[in-house]
Amino acid sequence: MIDMERSEEGAVEIGAIMEPAVHKVEAPPPQSTVEKMGLRMKETFFSDDPFRRFKGQPLLRKLVLGLQYLFPIFEWLPSYSFSLFKSDLIAGLTIASLAIPQGISYAKLANLPPIIGLYTSFVPPLVYAVLGSSKDLAIGPVSIASLIMGSMLREVANPNTETALFLHLAFTATFFAGIFQASLGILRLGFIIDFLSKATLLGFMAGAAIIVSLQQLKNLLGIVHFTQKMSVVPVMESVFHKTDEWSWQTVVMGISFLALLLVARHVGMRRPNLFWLSVGAPLASVILSTLIVFLFKAQKHGISTIGHLKSGLNSPSWNKLQFDSTYLGTVVKTGLVTGIISLTEGIASGRTFASLRGYQIDGNKEMMAVGLMNIVGSCTSCYVSTGSFSRSAVNHNAGSKTAMSNIVMALTVMITLLFLMPLFAYTPNVVLGAIIIAAVIGLIDVPTAYQIWKLDKVDFLVCLISFLGVIFISVQNGLAIAVGISIFRILLQTTRPKIIALGNILGTNIYRDMHQYKDAKRVPGFLILAIEAPINFTNTTYINERITRWIEDEMSMENKEINIQYLILDLSAVPTVDTSGISFLVDLKKSTEKYGLQLIFVNPMGEVMEKLQRANKLHSFLGVHSLYLTIAEAVFSHSSFVTQSKL
Amino acid sequence: MIDMERSEEGAVEIGAIMEPAVHKVEAPPPQSTVEKMGLRMKETFFSDDPFRRFKGQPLLRKLVLGLQYLFPIFEWLPSYSFSLFKSDLIAGLTIASLAIPQGISYAKLANLPPIIGLYTSFVPPLVYAVLGSSKDLAIGPVSIASLIMGSMLREVANPNTETALFLHLAFTATFFAGIFQASLGILRLGFIIDFLSKATLLGFMAGAAIIVSLQQLKNLLGIVHFTQKMSVVPVMESVFHKTDEWSWQTVVMGISFLALLLVARHVGMRRPNLFWLSVGAPLASVILSTLIVFLFKAQKHGISTIGHLKSGLNSPSWNKLQFDSTYLGTVVKTGLVTGIISLTEGIASGRTFASLRGYQIDGNKEMMAVGLMNIVGSCTSCYVSTGSFSRSAVNHNAGSKTAMSNIVMALTVMITLLFLMPLFAYTPNVVLGAIIIAAVIGLIDVPTAYQIWKLDKVDFLVCLISFLGVIFISVQNGLAIAVGISIFRILLQTTRPKIIALGNILGTNIYRDMHQYKDAKRVPGFLILAIEAPINFTNTTYINERITRWIEDEMSMENKEINIQYLILDLSAVPTVDTSGISFLVDLKKSTEKYGLQLIFVNPMGEVMEKLQRANKLHSFLGVHSLYLTIAEAVFSHSSFVTQSKL
Repeated sequence: MIDMERSEEGAVEIGAIMEPAVHKVEAPPPQSTVEKMGLRMKETFFSDDPFRRFKGQPLLRKLVLGLQYLFPIFEWLPSYSFSLFKSDLIAGLTIASLAIPQGISYAKLANLPPIIGLYTSFVPPLVYAVLGSSKDLAIGPVSIASLIMGSMLREVANPNTETALFLHLAFTATFFAGIFQASLGILRLGFIIDFLSKATLLGFMAGAAIIVSLQQLKNLLGIVHFTQKMSVVPVMESVFHKTDEWSWQTVVMGISFLALLLVARHVGMRRPNLFWLSVGAPLASVILSTLIVFLFKAQKHGISTIGHLKSGLNSPSWNKLQFDSTYLGTVVKTGLVTGIISLTEGIASGRTFASLRGYQIDGNKEMMAVGLMNIVGSCTSCYVSTGSFSRSAVNHNAGSKTAMSNIVMALTVMITLLFLMPLFAYTPNVVLGAIIIAAVIGLIDVPTAYQIWKLDKVDFLVCLISFLGVIFISVQNGLAIAVGISIFRILLQTTRPKIIALGNILGTNIYRDMHQYKDAKRVPGFLILAIEAPINFTNTTYINERITRWIEDEMSMENKEINIQYLILDLSAVPTVDTSGISFLVDLKKSTEKYGLQLIFVNPMGEVMEKLQRANKLHSFLGVHSLYLTIAEAVFSHSSFVTQSKL
Repeated sequence: MIDMERSEEGAVEIGAIMEPAVHKVEAPPPQSTVEKMGLRMKETFFSDDPFRRFKGQPLLRKLVLGLQYLFPIFEWLPSYSFSLFKSDLIAGLTIASLAIPQGISYAKLANLPPIIGLYTSFVPPLVYAVLGSSKDLAIGPVSIASLIMGSMLREVANPNTETALFLHLAFTATFFAGIFQASLGILRLGFIIDFLSKATLLGFMAGAAIIVSLQQLKNLLGIVHFTQKMSVVPVMESVFHKTDEWSWQTVVMGISFLALLLVARHVGMRRPNLFWLSVGAPLASVILSTLIVFLFKAQKHGISTIGHLKSGLNSPSWNKLQFDSTYLGTVVKTGLVTGIISLTEGIASGRTFASLRGYQIDGNKEMMAVGLMNIVGSCTSCYVSTGSFSRSAVNHNAGSKTAMSNIVMALTVMITLLFLMPLFAYTPNVVLGAIIIAAVIGLIDVPTAYQIWKLDKVDFLVCLISFLGVIFISVQNGLAIAVGISIFRILLQTTRPKIIALGNILGTNIYRDMHQYKDAKRVPGFLILAIEAPINFTNTTYINERITRWIEDEMSMENKEINIQYLILDLSAVPTVDTSGISFLVDLKKSTEKYGLQLIFVNPMGEVMEKLQRANKLHSFLGVHSLYLTIAEAVFSHSSFVTQSKL
């Protein structure tokens, strides 16, 4: 292998293009292992640099900033004004009108007494108002977490016969959800919720909405003996095998109110000035239906009602937490799953509305707030709560300015708990079912699914699997399968990285994918490949096979003018290599030599360059002319040698 | 935002450099979803293009090639010559001299009767000779798979009291290992074994070698009541709590033979011409120690011997496969783990020696061969077998030319089974222990571990965790933890991708990492960032936070001459985006506008470009001048605008 003299001149002409001098490939300035680890830890766990604002501030200011960081209420309360309060009051009353009927309904969805839903709309919002940094989130129970908690706990306790046990298990699961959420925030592992992709969530939400709606058929049809299972098949069996239990009065009432709610929702979405219609409809339905039942004594005609509810505020429940080893496994698992799911909804809602208003949400900080709120909740007769997406949207549209709207809502709920509970005795269950269906129907987002289909077929597949898994297998397993597939897809992208053959765009120094650019032409004598992934243990075998195939194809090609003599490997898109990757590069040097090829590396990034240098100390596989800063410089430095061989 | 006229001239001067015309960014030629899926499937599962050789061949030739593909023996047998046979005969006899003592020893390691080890060195090598494509692999039982099978099956059956059940479970686990291996090959999922990185395996092997050696203390010290557990702590307790059971005769004999074997191994490795010394030592030790026991009646002095072994070949065992549901779970799990581990050793050995001789091994094809060999083995009283790395090295060095050396070895084992079994009655167990220790000691590869430490600290950590996990927790769990960490590391690389700030190398069109290249200088008015990973749901939050921080840092920088006005995002190293990634890019356009910045994308790769175009149809977020082929062209097209704003 003859090596060329490297050009030392300032600029040399190739064709019509001025070629600058050949530049040296450099490694980044040396850093110790500890420094590097420190930087990597910072990027992994403190990528948002939460302590930036403290830099260079005097001590007292640091203390104030620290207090504001831990308790965001101190950020807005000192400058709170009456005009802000007016906005918050309206927003707070608006979300309270939703929170009361939804709270009762979602608690029933979780197989819990209805009053627990009101308790959960009272204490957690107050805690969040002190600790949370979102101005839009409306805190309280949400449909999906309620569904999951209800279905997971039902595996170990029967909510109808073991009511007290079931309730205590729910508090305990909430406690673990809170512990888990707060730990994620404190350990700065918030990125774990990023592993639920948009496509996964879309499919999951739609599936869960259908499961939730199907569960409501029990209330809507007035069936007394309903299956305990969640998935489509047993529910539909229950519905059609119990036609004798259908109550026509209930069906009529249910369908009427469902239609009312859906029409109000539709009108409210189409006409922003009729927004209050969709917001007020649930409370109006509750009041109207309660009046109907009361006036017509409908409870005697087969319409089941909530029944007597005890007045009064949350009682302490820390002594009811159930750490018995018989249930511990299920309770921890339930806490984990509901914790992650409710966190995902809360953080996503917070981020969405924050970006609409142009402020930032610190994900890890929010997790601590949500976690603490659930821990406090579990000790005060609440089950798992988070920021509800739909109610936060209402809060945002109703003009909330600060977390004060949550306080207003909580106080409204408190008044309800203290004085208005007897009024709910005649509220029919069928209306609660209709409210739930009208609320969750918005989770089925067909237009977005269609956009995903247009953009990325694999993402759509993940979405579909998530959806089908939830409705046919189970809520938890459907989600687990979808997350598994998403992660497998990412691993597959690393395992089977793109390797691209580059060609020169004539008359330039630019080298681009020959498949993508028709103008990019093969350079005689050179095979130029770019690897588009970290080179590590999962893909060295593949990259090796793929490159070998490329060389052999190139060698066996007929009618070619010049044999390839150089393999140029563009490492611009290889962010990292591990030891397997380095061994592969060392071996590749040898195996290309067997084909009579000289291997040239172009533009290794910082870390890759460092490791190449270190490996070169051990194996000295880098020749004098085997590293270039650009493809153009590598081709330029060796092209005259290719021309020689042709003569 | 004022847009510049795009230069239409052939070349425009910037500084001393000729700037070519601005080039259009193109998408790859359109392909249907089915075509794309097909291509992706091909790259994922048929990356080695196994059917390439059939292309354009006449039908008869295709049939012959197909037969040779399925049964590689037809490739070499027709042209087999006497001179090749001479080499294979020597190699075959050499590996037989190792296979016989090791077979007996490894069977004992798996808590199986010693004769099973010999059976396993007879049938599987014959099957492999017909189906396998390696010329170097020496087939038979191996230490690590034996250890794992022994320890996993011991959880459900006691090998001392339930000998027959244990044996039948071992056959069944072997059957499942074979089924699993063959399925991986047929389904072309061979890349699964790539998930065991070099570093993981190194730590695992070293840990397993120590566990295996510690187990041999039972034989070496002559202890009768030894713990059933594997990890370091209980074994050392057993050793030191049972000092009364130590037999000095056994200890003396054990240490002498171990020293002999280690010296022979050392000399054989240092002096290639004394290679036979290390190869012959185990058989010599067996013969010598058997003679000593026989002559001095040492079995009466506390030295335990193998005892009577039945002469005769393998009996059928398909009727002994145990599919009882009590054991099925454990047996399937054992088959899975031993199947993967033995496959990893076999394929890695095959690839290593193939690359030394310059031929290719088809991983998926080999998996089918190994799988079938184990299925046949499980029906003929064999337990799990694969290509042993150490014996393959001996086979290679002894000059084997084809798989015929395995046939020679198998026939030698057959003769032993038929006629020489009575001779083993007096072989002392202590020598078998010494042979095992001398064989596995080579698995502790400190120099490679040191190289890994020098090259990549995180890889070293994985190696260390794997090692410590195996010796302190358990063989399977240590491996599982190490694999988990390796995969988590890859996910973390995607979750926290490198984002690099680029600067211009003065006097060129080259833009490089400003941290790596001191000559790379900031371009006034531009913030140029390169993302080095696929943009997907796991990292959009991070990338968003990181870019925001960068913009804010840049904005708040003091003493700067020119405000940044452009954010250039170099997408050259972004191989793919998913729907979350596309949403992020769409949102980024909006959020940069809030900072008064214009967002420019540079060089999106094929798939990314396609998706940008499709997203643009939905959201039309790409402006007229927001896509360039190179950073230089983007900077050039907008730099005069930056200069204007300064005036």
